Amino acid sequence: MRIPKAINNAIESFERLPGVGPKTAQRLAFYLLHVPQGELDRFSQSVQNLKRDTVICSICFSVDDTNPCNICSSDRIKESICVVEQPLDLLAFEKSGKYKGLYHVLHGKIDPLNNIGPDEIYIKQLLDRIESQESLVKEVILATNPTMEGEATAMYIAKLLKTQEPTLRVTRIGRGLPTGSDIEYADSTTLDQAMTGRQEY
Amino acid sequence: MRIPKAINNAIESFERLPGVGPKTAQRLAFYLLHVPQGELDRFSQSVQNLKRDTVICSICFSVDDTNPCNICSSDRIKESICVVEQPLDLLAFEKSGKYKGLYHVLHGKIDPLNNIGPDEIYIKQLLDRIESQESLVKEVILATNPTMEGEATAMYIAKLLKTQEPTLRVTRIGRGLPTGSDIEYADSTTLDQAMTGRQEY
Repeated sequence: MRIPKAINNAIESFERLPGVGPKTAQRLAFYLLHVPQGELDRFSQSVQNLKRDTVICSICFSVDDTNPCNICSSDRIKESICVVEQPLDLLAFEKSGKYKGLYHVLHGKIDPLNNIGPDEIYIKQLLDRIESQESLVKEVILATNPTMEGEATAMYIAKLLKTQEPTLRVTRIGRGLPTGSDIEYADSTTLDQAMTGRQEY
Repeated sequence: MRIPKAINNAIESFERLPGVGPKTAQRLAFYLLHVPQGELDRFSQSVQNLKRDTVICSICFSVDDTNPCNICSSDRIKESICVVEQPLDLLAFEKSGKYKGLYHVLHGKIDPLNNIGPDEIYIKQLLDRIESQESLVKEVILATNPTMEGEATAMYIAKLLKTQEPTLRVTRIGRGLPTGSDIEYADSTTLDQAMTGRQEY
C-alpha cells in the first residue's frame, strides 16, 4: 500500500519531533485530514513564524519578541543572575514567581558524549556579562538540571567564576526531596543531599 | 512572565492535536526554536498541503492522491468489500497484505453520544455501491473496531444489508485472542469470543 505523498510528508514532519514515534506521527497526520483547511493554515503559519517573530536577547540569551528581553529591560534586581540550561527552565522559575533577579540562558549543557563542549553554549557570554564595567552582579545561582551533564556544567562554571571573580558569590540551587514526594521511595543520592542541605528552623 | 506571541501561537497549535497536552505542546514549540528555518518551512508546507494534495476516492472514500484511488482502479478482486472506520484501518489491513479485495471507508462510526448517526458516515454510499448495476460484490466484511460503537455500527450495517440484499454474504472480522497474548490475562468477553469463534483443525 502506497501512502499518498502529501500524507507521507506530514508523517515525516511529525516524526522529526522529539517524543513522536512513527505510529503517533501517522495518527496525527490522518487526524489533520479531518481538520478544516483554515485551521491547517493557522497551524502551518504558527510553525513558520515561530523563529521569524522571536529574537534571542543579546544580554541573557532568553527568547522573547524584543531585544533586550522583557526581563533584562525591566527594573528587576540586577545583583543576581540565575543560570539555566533552556528558556523553558527560565519559564518554570518565572511561574513560581519568587525570584526577582536576572537570568542567563546557556542553551544547552556541557555534554562530551554529544560533542558539546563549554564553547558550544553561552558560558563565555556569561563571563563577559559579569566582567563588564556596568555589571552590578553579586551572586550567580547555578540552576542547571540535577543530571550528570547539568551538574558537570554547574561545576565547570563555578570553577571558572571562582578563579576569575573571587569576590562573587556562586551558589547551586538546593537539592533534596521535592514537595509531595515520599521518603520511603526516594533514591539514596537524593536522601544524602537532603541531609547535607538541611536547614536551621 | 509573558511568553512571546509567536511561541504562544505555536503552543496553541500543538495543543489542538489529539494526545498533546499543554506541557508537551510547550516542549515541542521550544524544541522547534532550535531547528533551522528551512526545516520549519518544510514542516509548515507539509501541514498546509496535506489536504490540498490528497483527495477522497469517490468509490470507496479512502484517501489517496488519485480519484478513483489506487485500490479501486486496480485489478483487485471485486467480489468482496471490507468496511472500515478510518483510512488508517485500511492501511493496517494493507500492511498485513493478505486481503486482496476492495474497501469501503465509513469515516467514523455510529456514536449517539457524540451526535453521529448513520447519516453522518458513508453507509448510504456503501449501499449504493452494492446495489449499482455494475457491482460484482458477493461478500461484505464488516471490519469496524471491536468497541461498543464499532460493534453497533457493524450490527446496523449488517441488518440493513440483510434486508436489502438477502443474497449477499455479510461477515464480521474474527474475534478472539490476539497473537502473542496471554490467556491468563485475557478478559472474559475475549475468552468467550475465542471459544465461540473456535476453528476446526
